[in-house]
Amino acid sequence: MLSKNKIALINSLKSKKGRLKNNLFIAEGSKLFDEMLHSSFKTKFVFGKKDWLSKIENHHENSECEYFHIEENEMKKVSSLTSPQEVLALVEIPKFKYEHSEIEKELSLVLDRVQDPGNLGTIIRIADWYGIKNIFCSEDTVDAFNPKVIQATMGSIARVKAHYVDIISFLKNNPNGSNFPIYGSFLDGLNIYKTKLENHGLIVLGSESHGISQEILPFISGKITIPSFNDTLNRPESLNVAIATGIICSEFRRNLMIYD
Amino acid sequence: MLSKNKIALINSLKSKKGRLKNNLFIAEGSKLFDEMLHSSFKTKFVFGKKDWLSKIENHHENSECEYFHIEENEMKKVSSLTSPQEVLALVEIPKFKYEHSEIEKELSLVLDRVQDPGNLGTIIRIADWYGIKNIFCSEDTVDAFNPKVIQATMGSIARVKAHYVDIISFLKNNPNGSNFPIYGSFLDGLNIYKTKLENHGLIVLGSESHGISQEILPFISGKITIPSFNDTLNRPESLNVAIATGIICSEFRRNLMIYD
Repeated sequence: MLSKNKIALINSLKSKKGRLKNNLFIAEGSKLFDEMLHSSFKTKFVFGKKDWLSKIENHHENSECEYFHIEENEMKKVSSLTSPQEVLALVEIPKFKYEHSEIEKELSLVLDRVQDPGNLGTIIRIADWYGIKNIFCSEDTVDAFNPKVIQATMGSIARVKAHYVDIISFLKNNPNGSNFPIYGSFLDGLNIYKTKLENHGLIVLGSESHGISQEILPFISGKITIPSFNDTLNRPESLNVAIATGIICSEFRRNLMIYD
Repeated sequence: MLSKNKIALINSLKSKKGRLKNNLFIAEGSKLFDEMLHSSFKTKFVFGKKDWLSKIENHHENSECEYFHIEENEMKKVSSLTSPQEVLALVEIPKFKYEHSEIEKELSLVLDRVQDPGNLGTIIRIADWYGIKNIFCSEDTVDAFNPKVIQATMGSIARVKAHYVDIISFLKNNPNGSNFPIYGSFLDGLNIYKTKLENHGLIVLGSESHGISQEILPFISGKITIPSFNDTLNRPESLNVAIATGIICSEFRRNLMIYD
């Protein structure tokens, strides 16, 4: 049986306040557990059901994490998932750093007020797929270590760095003028299929309900749009922000491959 | 105060069985309500909070739906949303039909065991954006009239027809050979950025965990893949199925625009 302290610790990590205090986040399921163990992240505590523990313990005896047995009913109580898994791990929140000199040469994402945890997690997974290493999130973007975000990243949180920054200061301090394009996704920009897209710079994505904040607009050097192919009157207003991110990243990267 | 019967009716529509029995589905929020009202769907009952009703009633006095006042605490009890909205509507489930002659000329999606409601709703919204009118779902794909699917479609359910079919019979009865390509999304197919993609035919998408079923494979004439641009060893295994759908639809449609 799990101690009351451990149950309280797990539950505290469901809120940002608790995560900040304990510097830990929750990763559930054996897929995520494996990803964490093979990453640079430090897994501290592992709560496994009996069967899972008996399979796993021999393999990981050298690892630094502490293993605990958790009963089925305890797992149901602490899990954030609708179908609780066989393992729940607590992992140290890393300190992500970046160098301006690195950002200058690469493509990175900037997220302005993305509030849905599933969307943020999916965006981190997309970035990982397309070899994008850094995401800059506005301070009112949902916390990347929220359990729902972590689950949706499917492990990509260990490979893509999500930095929380004051977006305006970040854009002000950023690389030099015309050589460093700052793209923004809009409903009325240039047709993304017909626009030359550089493979370095920033791509700014706003929230679905509010779009990109007014204060950010002056920094945008390229307004881009995914055109709709629905020519009926009553067509959808927009795409989901994670879907738009996937399509935009695909468009930026396909050029690398086509003109290789 | 809402009658017990009405509360029981709303709650029954959260299960597929209840929806089949009553031939109604739930649409929550004023955005979805508006979409329903301006569609060919028949809205039967509308449960609105006081303020919302007072704004709306004059505008819709000719509509055929019945309006009811719902209290804040009643809305909380019947809503499927984490943040209940000001209106919840019950809409008749339509009978979707299609003609083979129509399908032959168009691009349609085929979904094999897509089980997450958010993913299905988002795929319906993507189809709507890219002018895809028909989606063929395997019988074990989540029900398109599940409240979570409906919310994620953001109204696109009124413009894209989701047909539930026996996929194998559907593929067997489908148009003629080489002039009707059947694409499938795989992890080991042809690079989608370098493959000629026709603007008619079917695109089959499997579930994230199982891929496309074995029995469907013989029907696939074009295996396609979204290549990853992450060349590190420890890279993600796949993209979320809705993200993959967005990127694939974008690739099929961009050709129409580029070679126009």
